[in-house]
Amino acid sequence: MADFRDLPAQGRFVGPEHRFPLRVYFEDTDVAGIVYYANYLRYMERARSDMLRQIGIDQRAALDGGEGVYVVADVAIRYRRPAKLEDALVVASRVREVRAASVLIHQRVMRGDQILTEAEVTAAFLSPDGRPKRHPRAWVSLIKGFVGE
Amino acid sequence: MADFRDLPAQGRFVGPEHRFPLRVYFEDTDVAGIVYYANYLRYMERARSDMLRQIGIDQRAALDGGEGVYVVADVAIRYRRPAKLEDALVVASRVREVRAASVLIHQRVMRGDQILTEAEVTAAFLSPDGRPKRHPRAWVSLIKGFVGE
Amino acid sequence: MADFRDLPAQGRFVGPEHRFPLRVYFEDTDVAGIVYYANYLRYMERARSDMLRQIGIDQRAALDGGEGVYVVADVAIRYRRPAKLEDALVVASRVREVRAASVLIHQRVMRGDQILTEAEVTAAFLSPDGRPKRHPRAWVSLIKGFVGE
Amino acid sequence: MADFRDLPAQGRFVGPEHRFPLRVYFEDTDVAGIVYYANYLRYMERARSDMLRQIGIDQRAALDGGEGVYVVADVAIRYRRPAKLEDALVVASRVREVRAASVLIHQRVMRGDQILTEAEVTAAFLSPDGRPKRHPRAWVSLIKGFVGE
Repeated sequence: MADFRDLPAQGRFVGPEHRFPLRVYFEDTDVAGIVYYANYLRYMERARSDMLRQIGIDQRAALDGGEGVYVVADVAIRYRRPAKLEDALVVASRVREVRAASVLIHQRVMRGDQILTEAEVTAAFLSPDGRPKRHPRAWVSLIKGFVGE
Repeated sequence: MADFRDLPAQGRFVGPEHRFPLRVYFEDTDVAGIVYYANYLRYMERARSDMLRQIGIDQRAALDGGEGVYVVADVAIRYRRPAKLEDALVVASRVREVRAASVLIHQRVMRGDQILTEAEVTAAFLSPDGRPKRHPRAWVSLIKGFVGE
Repeated sequence: MADFRDLPAQGRFVGPEHRFPLRVYFEDTDVAGIVYYANYLRYMERARSDMLRQIGIDQRAALDGGEGVYVVADVAIRYRRPAKLEDALVVASRVREVRAASVLIHQRVMRGDQILTEAEVTAAFLSPDGRPKRHPRAWVSLIKGFVGE
Repeated sequence: MADFRDLPAQGRFVGPEHRFPLRVYFEDTDVAGIVYYANYLRYMERARSDMLRQIGIDQRAALDGGEGVYVVADVAIRYRRPAKLEDALVVASRVREVRAASVLIHQRVMRGDQILTEAEVTAAFLSPDGRPKRHPRAWVSLIKGFVGE
């Protein structure tokens, strides 16, 4: 039963860029026939979570262990072209800057070579009681390691 | 059976500001114990749709009649404080600018006097085949009427 | 600022039936032009949570206090007619049976006098570590009180 | 750029069973720390859509071409064990019966060998104006082909 084909899609790094594939389902679309605008933020979060997992960061353990969690502090997103039902998309993500208690990430949702949506996202690390907190030191090394700083 | 108490919540205008109340349910939260970041965009869209309906714009008729639909072109959103399960919130919206084929709206999600989330949203009017199009002339009058231009 | 018109919609009891109004927004629909099937479960949960709050049960306090939480154990749902964008709906809920560690609720999503969707839902009370647990004694009284047992 | 690693996860058939892998993200969970109950229906729909695509049925073309769409008519779902953040799951689906205008499918959400959630789903084929309609003849052959009838 343990078969690699039963594993969910994973992203991969092409140099410093993380590429995460996904498909558009009925749940993602709305009556206007296109992907509902809030759902691109869901896609981008899946890609960020995958990126962290790929470099060895275990968000669930950090949450369960009371260490803390990344929370989005701000997003500037531009919608250029709509995605539609059954489209195969890729979320391309690049870490732009690692600060003491936050990370700045640039993310694009692509269909082939077309940019559909593009965003700058700041994720802040918070303690379980909701205060800004330095990222775990080991995480900073892991993130900087693949960013190439 | 036809009882006003069976009608869903509506927003109201306080001067040029539209105020739309809503409550946080389980569906809105995530494992970090707070409202998931994409869901504020859902809240803001509910408020914008209510605002349009209140001033006499029927989005469903425009969609069914093949006239067109508002689609979000860009959002800049800042998350200041988290909302939590059962919170009673208000989305406060103000139209900032009415352009030929788009509208700029400032929206804040409030809990009492606290600003939880704040965004600038540009909504563009599109024809059914997805091209930018002037808003229906009557709509521009309706929007400008309550904005006070 | 504290104005009752800034409060979200609430349901109300008509005899033993709890009636909860809501409206269909873009987020709820899909490319087929109707409300996406999973979203009726969101509507029904909003209605159940409102029902509990109305009779004096504070789910958030129970969760924060480590007492426990209601989790759905099973649902049998029948989709009869679709809801569409901008529809004003009512979720009508009746508690059918209060058991030691669960509650059986019948819920219908109505548009005027038409039944759109109908479900039997069993909600089980669980301790924070996920084990079935008797409901808080006070809650059973509150629930039975309005059910009329 | 066209790289198979940029393609989203696909399910596969093991005999008559379709197996579709997915991962749990923040968007799927709620404040109780587990996957929100309505989201299993989203998982199951992804699996059904993937199953149809794998056997050569193009739902988007049928929708765009005005032929019709599958809509869920009823679901009986049992929640046995919760899924949690980061879990790797498999949706295992089997077509039970192909009728004139509907299909009955049994679906289980699995984590390794554990059944987390189990459902019987009836999907009915509808014309664009919402009336029950026979499935396209070619589709019935495709479905029966892999079911082994």
